[in-house]
Amino acid sequence: MLVLGIDPGSVTTGWALLKSSGNKVHYVASGILKFDQGTDFLDRLTQIKKQTQSLLDEVSPDCISLESLIYVKSPTALIKLAQTRGIILSCMVEKYQGKIFEYSPNLVKSSAVGHGHADKESVKKVLDMLLGKREYKSHDESDAVAIALCHILNNGNGTKLKSKSARKGKGKGLAGSLSHAIKG
Amino acid sequence: MLVLGIDPGSVTTGWALLKSSGNKVHYVASGILKFDQGTDFLDRLTQIKKQTQSLLDEVSPDCISLESLIYVKSPTALIKLAQTRGIILSCMVEKYQGKIFEYSPNLVKSSAVGHGHADKESVKKVLDMLLGKREYKSHDESDAVAIALCHILNNGNGTKLKSKSARKGKGKGLAGSLSHAIKG
Repeated sequence: MLVLGIDPGSVTTGWALLKSSGNKVHYVASGILKFDQGTDFLDRLTQIKKQTQSLLDEVSPDCISLESLIYVKSPTALIKLAQTRGIILSCMVEKYQGKIFEYSPNLVKSSAVGHGHADKESVKKVLDMLLGKREYKSHDESDAVAIALCHILNNGNGTKLKSKSARKGKGKGLAGSLSHAIKG
Repeated sequence: MLVLGIDPGSVTTGWALLKSSGNKVHYVASGILKFDQGTDFLDRLTQIKKQTQSLLDEVSPDCISLESLIYVKSPTALIKLAQTRGIILSCMVEKYQGKIFEYSPNLVKSSAVGHGHADKESVKKVLDMLLGKREYKSHDESDAVAIALCHILNNGNGTKLKSKSARKGKGKGLAGSLSHAIKG
């Protein structure tokens, strides 16, 4: 199963493709989509739509994992981010109906590290350990890897999430509970 | 010129089509798009996309006028509304590139009534006076009429807005400054 993790942003959107088969998980590819910050926001939305459609056509995932939107920097930033997310979702809602999954940021972190308030570096270390050390262009890209992994982990546990709800309590941590599965 | 005004909402989206030619403005049609609140939000986004696309195909406007998003009820409401707006914009960003205009809520009101803090009833009265009295299904629909009118008014004054900026100061009021134009 090919899982596409997406970390939407109105300037940079991270993406990562992981393959899970049985108890194994492999890194396939990852990258970032960059949108020209200098342009009118409506023009930027056009770029976001085109690049997202191209990405989906290229990687053709079986399902898509997204981080749910709960963080508020400022209303202005939130409006831009949520509209970006709307545009990205519009590229997939029909073709991937029932195959789009959302996970809270805390669940994404706790699935990897074991607690929901881990910093990005701690998450990155776990990803390196489990999927091989690599240089990501930005945290948006490594976050997308963690988001894809979160889906595989929760699916593997039989908890298929379709909404913003998260597992109760702290996660066990991917490094602990699923390292056997990942390393296969 | 056919102007489509849209008042985006995640449950109800108002729309209105006005025709301006020379100094005249006529009401053509208006209505609301209703999305099933009971469904998963991702499914609702699919409905929003389909209904918006159908509307655009049906009315085929020359340009589109939207109210800019600045009001914050709650972060959760704002996230839903902004994502809805992203989906709606995704239906038009390519075909209507350079033909989508945004106006601040204050400018929409001040263009009609003369000041930016007018209530919906006052706006409705001005619309009735200028375009003929009619029953709108909801404020979303009459707001959409005001949004389309705002574009015509500001275009008529030679101020073509593409961003969220609004004219400085209070508007003169459509009823005052442009009634000759509307009534032709």
